[in-house]
Amino acid sequence: MATESGRKAVVLVSGGLDSATVLGIAKAEGFDCHAISFDYGQRHRHELVAAERVCEAAGVARHIVCPIDLRAFGGSALTDEIDVPKDRSDDEMEAGIPVTYVPARNTIFLSLALGWAETLGATDLFIGVNAVDYSGYPDCRPEFVAAFQQVANLGTKVGVEGEAWTIHTPLVSLTKAEIIRRGTELGVDYGLTLSCYDPDEHGRPCGKCDSCLLRAKGFAEAGLVDPLVG
Amino acid sequence: MATESGRKAVVLVSGGLDSATVLGIAKAEGFDCHAISFDYGQRHRHELVAAERVCEAAGVARHIVCPIDLRAFGGSALTDEIDVPKDRSDDEMEAGIPVTYVPARNTIFLSLALGWAETLGATDLFIGVNAVDYSGYPDCRPEFVAAFQQVANLGTKVGVEGEAWTIHTPLVSLTKAEIIRRGTELGVDYGLTLSCYDPDEHGRPCGKCDSCLLRAKGFAEAGLVDPLVG
Repeated sequence: MATESGRKAVVLVSGGLDSATVLGIAKAEGFDCHAISFDYGQRHRHELVAAERVCEAAGVARHIVCPIDLRAFGGSALTDEIDVPKDRSDDEMEAGIPVTYVPARNTIFLSLALGWAETLGATDLFIGVNAVDYSGYPDCRPEFVAAFQQVANLGTKVGVEGEAWTIHTPLVSLTKAEIIRRGTELGVDYGLTLSCYDPDEHGRPCGKCDSCLLRAKGFAEAGLVDPLVG
Repeated sequence: MATESGRKAVVLVSGGLDSATVLGIAKAEGFDCHAISFDYGQRHRHELVAAERVCEAAGVARHIVCPIDLRAFGGSALTDEIDVPKDRSDDEMEAGIPVTYVPARNTIFLSLALGWAETLGATDLFIGVNAVDYSGYPDCRPEFVAAFQQVANLGTKVGVEGEAWTIHTPLVSLTKAEIIRRGTELGVDYGLTLSCYDPDEHGRPCGKCDSCLLRAKGFAEAGLVDPLVG
C-alpha cells in the first residue's frame, strides 16, 4: 500500500461491493479519503448502515450522508413501490435499461460530491461505475463520466482558475469477478457490504434480485466465497 | 403569446427577477411549465415565498420545492455566516468570482431538474443564467451549460434512446435592463420577485447588496420603475 500523500479525494460510497472496492483502491493510491453517501429515500435503510460500516473499516477522514428527496420525482424501483425483479436470467438482465434505473442518479450524486469536494479543496472524485456487468445504466458509461468531468472543469471556481478535475472510475472496465479479486487483494471486507435491492428486515440479502445474482456470479467466477452468504 | 403546445418544460425558479422572466418566456413559447425551486438552507426564506408567488401568478402546471442540505458543505455567503458585501462599486462587483459563489450550485440544481424532467417526460429545461452582468460565476457561462447538456444527453435513459435535451438559457446574453424590458413586455409582475441577498424580516430588499444594486441599475437603464421600491 502506498504511503499517505495527504491529497484529498471524495469517494462515493453506497455500502455496496463496488464502492467498497473503490474506497480500498483510493486509499491504496494514497488519497486522504472523504466519503459521501446519499440518503435518497431508498426502500431500505440497510444500505446506509453498510456504507457506515465500510467507511469506518477503511478509516476515512470523514463520512457524510447527504439527504436528497428524490421520492417526489418517482420513476424507479429503488424509490417507488414497483416490485424488484427476481431470478432473472443473464439475457433478461442485459436487455435494455433496468427498471431499477433512477433518473439522472449519478449526475445528481456526482454534482453533490463535486460541491463538497470543492469546499474541501479536493479535485479528485472516485465513483464505482461499471460498464461491463451493468451496461444498462446510461450514467455508468465512460462517455458520461468524461462529460461530467468537463462540467466540473467548466462549472467550478477551481476549474476556471486552472485546476483540472479527475473523476476516477477504477472499476469501469472490470468484471464483477475482477472487482472482487482486486478488493480481496486490498483487504476489503465484503462481509461489511450489502448489494441486495430487497434485503430482509435484518439486512440480509434476498439472493434473487439482479444485484444478488450478479454478486453471486462474481464470487463464483473469482473462485472466492462471499462472506455474506458463505 | 403562443398557444399551449402541451410540450412540458422544467423551469428553475428562484423567486428572483431573472427566473421570473425565464418563466414568462417559457410560457410565451408555449411550454407547459413545471417549476422547481431549491431549499438549500438559504439565509432567508423570503426567496422561496417569492418563488411560490411567481409560480402562482404564471399559472404553472406544478411547482415543487426540492430540499438540498448544502450547509454541511460550507463555503458560501448564501449559506454561511459570511457577511453579504454592501454598496460595492461596479468594478468591485466585476472583480473575480463573488463571495456569494456556492460550490457547484448550478450543476446541482440542473441535475435535480434533469431527474425530475425525465420522470415527467420533458426534455426541455429553462434556467436564468446570465453571463453579462454576473460573469463572475463559472456555472453561468454558455460553455458550462453546453457541457451540462452533453451530460444530460449521455447520462439519461431518454438521451440514450435518442431524444436530445435542450437547456434553454434565454437570458444568457441580455443585460439586466434588456431582461427587465423583455419581462415587462410579457407581463411579468416584478413586484412579486425578490432579488436581495439580505432582506429585512418582512422580506423587503436591503437596497445595498450586489443583487439590489444590479437590479436598481437595470430598472434605471430600462427606464422603468421597480414596483418593489417604486
